[in-house]
Amino acid sequence: MNQFINARETLVTDAIDGLLETSGGTLTRLDGYPHIKVVCRADWDKSKVALISGGGSGHEPAHAGFVGPGMLTAAVCGEVFASPSVDAVLAGILAVTGDSGCLLIVKNYTGDRLNFGLAAERARAFGLKVSMVVVDDDIALPDLPQPRGVAGTLFVHKIAGAMAEAGADLEQIALSAQKAIENMASIGKSLDTCTVPGSVKEDRIAPGMAELGLGIHGEAGVQQVAFKNARDAMDLVLAKLAPKIGKGPHVAILNNLGSTTPLEMSILAHELAISDKAANIKYIIGPAPMMTSLDMHEFSVSVLPVNEANKAHLEHPVDMIAWPGMRPIAPAQLRPLPDGLSPIQPIPSAHPRTRRVLEHCCDLLIAAENALNELDAKSGDGDTGSTLATAARALKKALDRLPLADPTQLFRAVSNELSQTMGGSSGVILAIFFGATGDACASGKPTPKALLAGLQRIGQVGGASKGDRTMIDALQPALMALPEGLDVAARAAREGADATAHMGRAKAGRASYVPEENLIGHNDPGAEAVARLFEGLAKTM
Amino acid sequence: MNQFINARETLVTDAIDGLLETSGGTLTRLDGYPHIKVVCRADWDKSKVALISGGGSGHEPAHAGFVGPGMLTAAVCGEVFASPSVDAVLAGILAVTGDSGCLLIVKNYTGDRLNFGLAAERARAFGLKVSMVVVDDDIALPDLPQPRGVAGTLFVHKIAGAMAEAGADLEQIALSAQKAIENMASIGKSLDTCTVPGSVKEDRIAPGMAELGLGIHGEAGVQQVAFKNARDAMDLVLAKLAPKIGKGPHVAILNNLGSTTPLEMSILAHELAISDKAANIKYIIGPAPMMTSLDMHEFSVSVLPVNEANKAHLEHPVDMIAWPGMRPIAPAQLRPLPDGLSPIQPIPSAHPRTRRVLEHCCDLLIAAENALNELDAKSGDGDTGSTLATAARALKKALDRLPLADPTQLFRAVSNELSQTMGGSSGVILAIFFGATGDACASGKPTPKALLAGLQRIGQVGGASKGDRTMIDALQPALMALPEGLDVAARAAREGADATAHMGRAKAGRASYVPEENLIGHNDPGAEAVARLFEGLAKTM
Repeated sequence: MNQFINARETLVTDAIDGLLETSGGTLTRLDGYPHIKVVCRADWDKSKVALISGGGSGHEPAHAGFVGPGMLTAAVCGEVFASPSVDAVLAGILAVTGDSGCLLIVKNYTGDRLNFGLAAERARAFGLKVSMVVVDDDIALPDLPQPRGVAGTLFVHKIAGAMAEAGADLEQIALSAQKAIENMASIGKSLDTCTVPGSVKEDRIAPGMAELGLGIHGEAGVQQVAFKNARDAMDLVLAKLAPKIGKGPHVAILNNLGSTTPLEMSILAHELAISDKAANIKYIIGPAPMMTSLDMHEFSVSVLPVNEANKAHLEHPVDMIAWPGMRPIAPAQLRPLPDGLSPIQPIPSAHPRTRRVLEHCCDLLIAAENALNELDAKSGDGDTGSTLATAARALKKALDRLPLADPTQLFRAVSNELSQTMGGSSGVILAIFFGATGDACASGKPTPKALLAGLQRIGQVGGASKGDRTMIDALQPALMALPEGLDVAARAAREGADATAHMGRAKAGRASYVPEENLIGHNDPGAEAVARLFEGLAKTM
Repeated sequence: MNQFINARETLVTDAIDGLLETSGGTLTRLDGYPHIKVVCRADWDKSKVALISGGGSGHEPAHAGFVGPGMLTAAVCGEVFASPSVDAVLAGILAVTGDSGCLLIVKNYTGDRLNFGLAAERARAFGLKVSMVVVDDDIALPDLPQPRGVAGTLFVHKIAGAMAEAGADLEQIALSAQKAIENMASIGKSLDTCTVPGSVKEDRIAPGMAELGLGIHGEAGVQQVAFKNARDAMDLVLAKLAPKIGKGPHVAILNNLGSTTPLEMSILAHELAISDKAANIKYIIGPAPMMTSLDMHEFSVSVLPVNEANKAHLEHPVDMIAWPGMRPIAPAQLRPLPDGLSPIQPIPSAHPRTRRVLEHCCDLLIAAENALNELDAKSGDGDTGSTLATAARALKKALDRLPLADPTQLFRAVSNELSQTMGGSSGVILAIFFGATGDACASGKPTPKALLAGLQRIGQVGGASKGDRTMIDALQPALMALPEGLDVAARAAREGADATAHMGRAKAGRASYVPEENLIGHNDPGAEAVARLFEGLAKTM
């Protein structure tokens, strides 16, 4: 799998340099590449307790992204998923530690413990005050003597960072950090593994499955479970955390491990906010990528009790963009819809044959959903089928309130329905089509001629005509042939639709952004929809 | 492909609710689900010009994530990649527009143009002052009459937002927005397509290829090009933008389209910062996901000239966490390494046979890199081979400065080299191993016994012993058998390594986090490395 890197050997140093160059001068680094990769606050004067964290890379923005006033003083970065060396940690300690001493915030992995531990020993031999806390917040394996350190580490960075900034001494800070570590718990759930640069991605999680209880290094989760949906995924995670959530308010870190989209993260935030398993979670940090695992399609939740003391520390604002801040969770506030939206409702009327035709049209579009999506994926965003099917489903539900016996009112009502439910350019274009068709009916035209008038209007508004690789290529011949019967119209629509496969660059719509070679050989999905509609009607009506 | 959603029908509303519930009360929405999805500032009093943007969903944090003081007043959200309906846009306009009027900021897609345009007409019929600007910053297809609107839209949100906040009138704001649109340019480059919820992902981009000039809806790029590395990718993008970059300072938006990792984005930021094609890009916004395309593995760069007026608007701080702020680009600042790191350098000496053995050991580990990585991927993070090979490469380069003729100094020097270059827990453990071996040599032990003393020390520090599924399972029998010759030692190492495949849960190291069923049948990669080393030495020495 391709990645935007230059070489395995330089990927961490390149990334650190990119971070520094775009930090606006707030970050600096030790001149120790390639083995010593230490990012420091540029404004640091050693007047307060220094906070040093770090570990393997691949967890960005952790840890260098949290270096700045109010959080870390320095981050010691290893290669991807590998602890930094003793010398690198020692360099970091020696570079930033003044008379107030320093606290090492270490995630509980053997490598980090060994390297930070040995470096602390060596630094103490220089007469420096060095304390170390080890974060072990992962509850995936309750019986393991050495739980891993994962996203809960951010709680420690923030609480210790606010205290250090306020001038607290090393003992106080270490004590508060240790207390937070003892009270926190984290667990993650993933839909896919991660891509370690330069290695082949492991294909471990089958479609339809998810892993629960993962670390942040792509290692396998504790168990594979069937994946149902976002609600179920969040419920399972919260159920695991529930025994750790005591009385009183708690804060949750909702962490994106890499390639979970913002859309999915917001859905997970919603499920967290409304879950009855999380009633005591009153504050949230995120959703945001904070402690990632390269491009893992995973989220994790970390919880911590909130009290007066740590609330102030957690809320204390910092400038680092990687820190999303802590906010209270509250139900969504609604505003009433403004006046002026509701069109006048037509009086419903019955007409069994019209109802049957309309219903059949809707069913044909619903049945074609996936086929049209696949066709649209060749040239567009793969949603033509879904857009039409969604509108068709809504229209079927609206049949009872439509003026089925009055063509003029019916076409106008269909126009209104589509403009309200369909969205997309096709929604407006079809709304204009049916609106203009209704207008033509009102002026006395028979339905086939009225439909042609509607077609003329959308040609004007959309700027497309026959030959431009749009639905007009099927709709126009079909409507022209309609007076000769449905069979003839269906054949004309099919010929028109199939002709679009040989048309080069589209002149309108989204396919006009696509190179010609991607279009040739595939029917335009709009034209194909029209052809399928007429063919289906011809077969059964 | 699984995604953290509940259902295709509710994914946008679920996500909007999640955003609101975790907004700390800063956002509200109109009570018009499911068709009307409008997110508004909760503190809005209609006293200034309202700014309304929106379009299809799937571009988060755009646009709802930029709603707040200093940017948007409201975002009108469609379904994924589908424009919102006329009614939804109209509802947004009616809800937030006061006497100062409103500006619609629309990306140049037919659907958005039609729906926002029709809604503007209807709103004007209510007597409201409504202006509209259409962003068309994409330069992927220079000959297209209707270029798409992509991430440059954020420039407009920010500039217009700062002006509206400062009390500018609608005409001034629309003029500045239009001027920014005319001067900006954007282009993207992708390594993979995106996953439209509920649809099968299109497999369009072959390994080793990339697409240049994409939109934000998964549509195919203008051309496929061979993918070389991050530098080449950024150079190609900047070369396309170069004709649009005039004299004077410019700002670049470095946008993550979805699943590009923060590590990759920082590397791309570095390449942008140092490229000679981007000499006039003096400021940067990002890298960050701002205008995404679901989970697209893509980045885009948007450029705009910076002058005194828009600089203040772009720099104006806002609270929305989705906005990363604008910062000057500057070379990374370096600090000298602190004193106390450099160990005393041993005096180099020659010893051809020792050199040959050492060199051969290194070559064996380098040759085993991929095999050991694959083995490690079964139980860990797949890096054992690379960690050992990296150290071996560094050691080979150091041979000329090693005290090859003095076993005590040599083992200590190897310890120092490994602690400086290797990282990872294996780095420290091996450093302790060779350091203790050197100590034992100094006290007069012959090499095989000294190596056993080193082994004993790492057992103490790491807490592992034979049978715990670590490299000790191969190293201990090999060293015990070493006095009987290399062949016997190699057989002992192989037997020990193969025995690890039948050991259940590991008791130490990262494999201890992995369930037993993933371990059974695979040798421990550390033990396997030891076996390959002894086997290779036995064969050739």
